[in-house]
Amino acid sequence: MSERKLRIILAYDGTDFCGWQIQACGRTVQGEVERALEILHEHPLGVCAAGRTDSGVHARGQVISFRSDATVPDERFARALNSHLPRDVRALSCVVTTDEFHARYSARWREYKYYIEPAEVSDPFSRRFAWTLKTCPDLRTLNACARLLVGTHDFAAFSAAGDKSRSTVRSIRSATFHVENRFVVFRIVGNAFLWKMVRSVVGTIVACCREARPPDAFRRVLVSRDRRRAGTTAPAKGLVLTRVYYDEST
Amino acid sequence: MSERKLRIILAYDGTDFCGWQIQACGRTVQGEVERALEILHEHPLGVCAAGRTDSGVHARGQVISFRSDATVPDERFARALNSHLPRDVRALSCVVTTDEFHARYSARWREYKYYIEPAEVSDPFSRRFAWTLKTCPDLRTLNACARLLVGTHDFAAFSAAGDKSRSTVRSIRSATFHVENRFVVFRIVGNAFLWKMVRSVVGTIVACCREARPPDAFRRVLVSRDRRRAGTTAPAKGLVLTRVYYDEST
Repeated sequence: MSERKLRIILAYDGTDFCGWQIQACGRTVQGEVERALEILHEHPLGVCAAGRTDSGVHARGQVISFRSDATVPDERFARALNSHLPRDVRALSCVVTTDEFHARYSARWREYKYYIEPAEVSDPFSRRFAWTLKTCPDLRTLNACARLLVGTHDFAAFSAAGDKSRSTVRSIRSATFHVENRFVVFRIVGNAFLWKMVRSVVGTIVACCREARPPDAFRRVLVSRDRRRAGTTAPAKGLVLTRVYYDEST
Repeated sequence: MSERKLRIILAYDGTDFCGWQIQACGRTVQGEVERALEILHEHPLGVCAAGRTDSGVHARGQVISFRSDATVPDERFARALNSHLPRDVRALSCVVTTDEFHARYSARWREYKYYIEPAEVSDPFSRRFAWTLKTCPDLRTLNACARLLVGTHDFAAFSAAGDKSRSTVRSIRSATFHVENRFVVFRIVGNAFLWKMVRSVVGTIVACCREARPPDAFRRVLVSRDRRRAGTTAPAKGLVLTRVYYDEST
């Protein structure tokens, strides 16, 4: 089999992982994926991912790319990979892509969803995948805050200590709250995100909704660029990397 | 608050429980529920449940009943109970019922669902709640077997060693396979079930579907009343007690 570049969509339950990226200690998704790929290729192989999800964060649409000389046919690659992956990571699809494609650098937009579960409809089956709130603000108020995020802004107020990004400016294409079954879901699409930015935004919007004029309170935090003004960071378990957009799929 | 009989619907993720019933060792749902009720009532209190679900089996519609002299108003009882329950058990509702009502003995029919996930659509988020099958038999064949269960039969072939039931005769009102999202779901409604009977039925039907004439193979197991003829017991994690029917709700 000649060498070709593969592009794979991954889903994982982040609960029992220390995030995507290989670290000195702890189980990581990248570690498990590279271990499984090494078995298929009979040599070590490094992969890059569109989003370096944090400890406890899930994915339904993570994208990875790498050059492969495996003898497994492309159409059977995802299944072959799954047979070597633990049950909390699954390859959903595999396609051959161009040599220029790079899961991280070719990505135009990343979509995350954050799941909030109002306590009165809480359910034991979703506790690993949603943030339970005793009182959830109404959709109209949440959206009055969320729409302030759209556009290109300096998101320094929502950066986390230890973030190594040089610039804190990011572009947000869409940010809305809507209802999905029992959940209130925050969907955000941006070119990229600061470390813990989505969770910090969700925590701050929920906190601002308890104040007298939520959109004003949230706007003041956003323009302050001062992370001490932001609310608490919402828990990792509610966050899912749902989709990555590339030029051809936008 | 005068004493009254309460009827509560419970949901639980059975993964981390040694089943419903209090045992010498291990965490049980009954143990957690009685502990929470003791806090609310300030005295110990025993409850009975409609179905004594096994280790690892889930519930979305378990019913319990007990006499209560708690001062918590009925309409706030479920929420108060939840504040003392671990997150993998939730009270979904609470109503005052008649003194004669008994969650177990008043139950007319019990509904269980068994979730099968075909491997090609497997998902890391449902691995705790479904049995993954590499090749799943088609619905028509599964249903040709399932319909043989309907009626009153001696289900000794599907009893487990250690079952203390005096009779192995049970009445099945409905037994069908259908598709629910990504899952193939077995729904069975019966007056009662032997220990591990539903899982044994599912495991046997799946095994018979690999033979030349599945319905005949399954019929031979059923009429044999010999549990050595049955297939392997399907894993607990796919099974959910979904509903209990009483006279007024049938």
